[in-house]
Amino acid sequence: MLGDELLSTIFSDDTHGNAEKIYQSGVLFKELQIPQQKMTLSDQSTFLKYDVTGAYTQSEFNVQNGLPKVRALNQKDYRKTQRYYAKQGEITPEIEYAAIRENVPLQQVIDKVTLGHAIIPANKHHQELEPMIIGRDFLVKVNANIGNSPTSSSLQEELEKLWWALRYGADTVMDLSTGKHISAIREQILRHSPVPIGTVPVYQALEKVDGNLGELNWQIMRDVLIEQAEQGVDYFTIHAGVLREFISSASERLTGIVSRGGAIMANWCLQHKQQNFLYTHFQEICDILQYYDVTISLGDGLRPGSIKDANDEAQFAELKVLGELTQIAWKKDVQVMIEGPGHIPLHKLAENIERQQTYCHGAPFYTLGPLVTDIAPGYDHITSCIGAAIMGQLGTSVLCYVTPKEHLGLPNKEDVKQGLIAYKIAAHAADVAKGHPGAQAWDDALSSARFDFRWEDQFNLSLDPATARSYHDETLPQPNAKHAPFCAMCGPKFCSMRASHAIKSSLALSNDECT
Amino acid sequence: MLGDELLSTIFSDDTHGNAEKIYQSGVLFKELQIPQQKMTLSDQSTFLKYDVTGAYTQSEFNVQNGLPKVRALNQKDYRKTQRYYAKQGEITPEIEYAAIRENVPLQQVIDKVTLGHAIIPANKHHQELEPMIIGRDFLVKVNANIGNSPTSSSLQEELEKLWWALRYGADTVMDLSTGKHISAIREQILRHSPVPIGTVPVYQALEKVDGNLGELNWQIMRDVLIEQAEQGVDYFTIHAGVLREFISSASERLTGIVSRGGAIMANWCLQHKQQNFLYTHFQEICDILQYYDVTISLGDGLRPGSIKDANDEAQFAELKVLGELTQIAWKKDVQVMIEGPGHIPLHKLAENIERQQTYCHGAPFYTLGPLVTDIAPGYDHITSCIGAAIMGQLGTSVLCYVTPKEHLGLPNKEDVKQGLIAYKIAAHAADVAKGHPGAQAWDDALSSARFDFRWEDQFNLSLDPATARSYHDETLPQPNAKHAPFCAMCGPKFCSMRASHAIKSSLALSNDECT
Repeated sequence: MLGDELLSTIFSDDTHGNAEKIYQSGVLFKELQIPQQKMTLSDQSTFLKYDVTGAYTQSEFNVQNGLPKVRALNQKDYRKTQRYYAKQGEITPEIEYAAIRENVPLQQVIDKVTLGHAIIPANKHHQELEPMIIGRDFLVKVNANIGNSPTSSSLQEELEKLWWALRYGADTVMDLSTGKHISAIREQILRHSPVPIGTVPVYQALEKVDGNLGELNWQIMRDVLIEQAEQGVDYFTIHAGVLREFISSASERLTGIVSRGGAIMANWCLQHKQQNFLYTHFQEICDILQYYDVTISLGDGLRPGSIKDANDEAQFAELKVLGELTQIAWKKDVQVMIEGPGHIPLHKLAENIERQQTYCHGAPFYTLGPLVTDIAPGYDHITSCIGAAIMGQLGTSVLCYVTPKEHLGLPNKEDVKQGLIAYKIAAHAADVAKGHPGAQAWDDALSSARFDFRWEDQFNLSLDPATARSYHDETLPQPNAKHAPFCAMCGPKFCSMRASHAIKSSLALSNDECT
Repeated sequence: MLGDELLSTIFSDDTHGNAEKIYQSGVLFKELQIPQQKMTLSDQSTFLKYDVTGAYTQSEFNVQNGLPKVRALNQKDYRKTQRYYAKQGEITPEIEYAAIRENVPLQQVIDKVTLGHAIIPANKHHQELEPMIIGRDFLVKVNANIGNSPTSSSLQEELEKLWWALRYGADTVMDLSTGKHISAIREQILRHSPVPIGTVPVYQALEKVDGNLGELNWQIMRDVLIEQAEQGVDYFTIHAGVLREFISSASERLTGIVSRGGAIMANWCLQHKQQNFLYTHFQEICDILQYYDVTISLGDGLRPGSIKDANDEAQFAELKVLGELTQIAWKKDVQVMIEGPGHIPLHKLAENIERQQTYCHGAPFYTLGPLVTDIAPGYDHITSCIGAAIMGQLGTSVLCYVTPKEHLGLPNKEDVKQGLIAYKIAAHAADVAKGHPGAQAWDDALSSARFDFRWEDQFNLSLDPATARSYHDETLPQPNAKHAPFCAMCGPKFCSMRASHAIKSSLALSNDECT
């Protein structure tokens, strides 16, 4: 199914600078192999980076069969979630993996998962998964959306997007396919993904009834949930908070209901003159999720679609319901995160996380951007990463990326890259602001390389080494320019960093004179 | 000097959607022609936008002779600045122009300029200028840096960068040339610029002595200031706050002194064992500025060059000196703004504007970014526009753009465009957050077009219509797709906005049933 030529192009360039893949073993579970990227700089110092690239950066393997299955499947485990084990104080391989990966004490992981303030999305059937943790006390994570649409894309294109997403640092990936072959695409994405995969199951349910809302019902949805859980999907977005009574106020907005799942459920309620079946069957949904340990991502079906509609009655009414549903899910030990907007101007951002943390009892927040202005279609990775950085600083746990194509078309793999780079910037800026241990060391290592004119180190340490190198080489491609104490921005005479070295020398000299 | 073929390429594409240039006349000064862009949308509503593009979007003229001289030169005016007139309560053409352009009362302009909380940079010799106002109570402005370096660029390239800067909305432009023919390039930039032009005169002074700091002195600098003021430069960056006693602490930093002007002055102090001559001759500098009404932009020569060095002793020691110099300049009626950093993590941003407003008595703040992380060379327009948006919201008046080439090479015109778009996003997001009258109307007009599937309106209203259109057309190029109630992102069945219209119809129907 996959062309052989693909294998050779995966991660074959210098995306990760001169990083070398290393593994740390578990202590309790010695078979665990927790990956990191280790960079050796030209001054012989080393620098370690969190790694999400899976076996793709390890060694060659037959990509057609999918990734190696690194997690064991224990049949007796069904119905016992990571939250269940954490509450018992029982350490699972996933808990140890996540703790070592984040470089935090085991007890911190256990405590936060028990409280529901953190989650470890890990469907028992996703055996290719390298576990990770999501919560405000951990590194801010980035989610990348991929998936086809009825007008565009194929299985091969979607796998390429997955690879590009991993390459540029996606911590989780959602397959939002709504086009052809969505079960087959999802199967391949799961078998090829070392990171948690999320979906919005109602898309497939609607496809099953050919888009005919009149035929959509709980039984169809239930079958889809089980099919996808069996495949290994790690988290489901479920729009159970779009209550029938909220629709009228949401429909008065400038941009109505812009969540696809939200709009589907609202239309369903109106057509059937019934309450949202995801709400009325919420206990049964949780039973399915608990069985496989699928995390629920409570969808914000009524999020604003324009800054004009931000923080309105419908948005916060739904958020309160999500808080109630959180407690129901927790009673069944289902892990929960809460989705958030969307389009929010700068001065209304803080209220979102404050209300979410209060209404939803500290469950992790997962926001889409938010975009802080609506005037720049084509650049919404930028309009939204401004909001994302601030939300991350304020405590949002996962930032769902937005690509340059948002509002205009289906993202291709270059869009995936651009979206991810903008969001890795936002997440890291938030980690630094939150004082996450070790976060700023990356900035400092790069700044030090910059100040010392170690150009190759500067490129290799950057989020996108190939681009940094090519921008530099555009005007100074000569090999000796890689050791030159200046670049084309200022040239040699006006380079302030070069002048700064002269200042240091002068001061050292004048100190010598004094002695 | 300029190729004829250039004329036809200036603003000949659809950069400004289907906007039409309109003019408002002055009330007191009837000869004033204050420009705006007027867009007529497909629903026949109209939308007005601030316009910085000068005569280039008006009608054809011989670009080789420069722009028409729209300001009169009054010989009796020398030594009388906009601040002087405002203090007298005397309305100048520049004051009226700025008030109408911002759509604010004349008295607000007079009051803020009198207090020093706003400036109207307008050298009497820059007769091509279309006056504008800078201050926290007005629209947040964006500055674009252009200029050659000893390793790159020519006069023609720099003029093209100026045009691209105007095209994408630069409110002010700095010519930071340090390479060949810097006087000739500056002359052409001034004659072709409808926006205020700033420079860092010490660059030319250093060029005059062939980079030999031993020969640099006040007399040489004085000649440069007069030459540039005669040409019409509207604001000078002067690094008068880099005092000899601050150098030692700044040189201990991770990245030393990263301001070019700051590093020059620090090295000069060390070499001459004297106090910074820009500080000791500050009164004489102000006399020259007052004569032509050149605004002083007090340079932050000790700004941090990495987030590690942010908000340190050297940075704030210099800022206090800038506050003292502000009061000296104000006594001579010289208009003042204060430059700010640079590289600041999210959690240290607010302290910068708080200290600046206190130390510098409310003078407008003009920050470079700031970058909120150092890990993304090649994407520093993004790392910095996050900081810029927040600083704008908190009260910064001008955001100096950063291009993708920052730290790597001299920006070309595509970099100028990318930097400007990121910064127009930041400035507008700040205007919306500050509740600037009319700012959000732009977002709302675009969102309304989006919700109604008026694709052409959506493209035309966006910051970069050509890019928005091309992203849409990548997958749906057919003419009828411009009226389709969906795009390639979700396709017809999953378009939430289309579903939202169905919801509205259902609700309208069921309301009808009740009556």
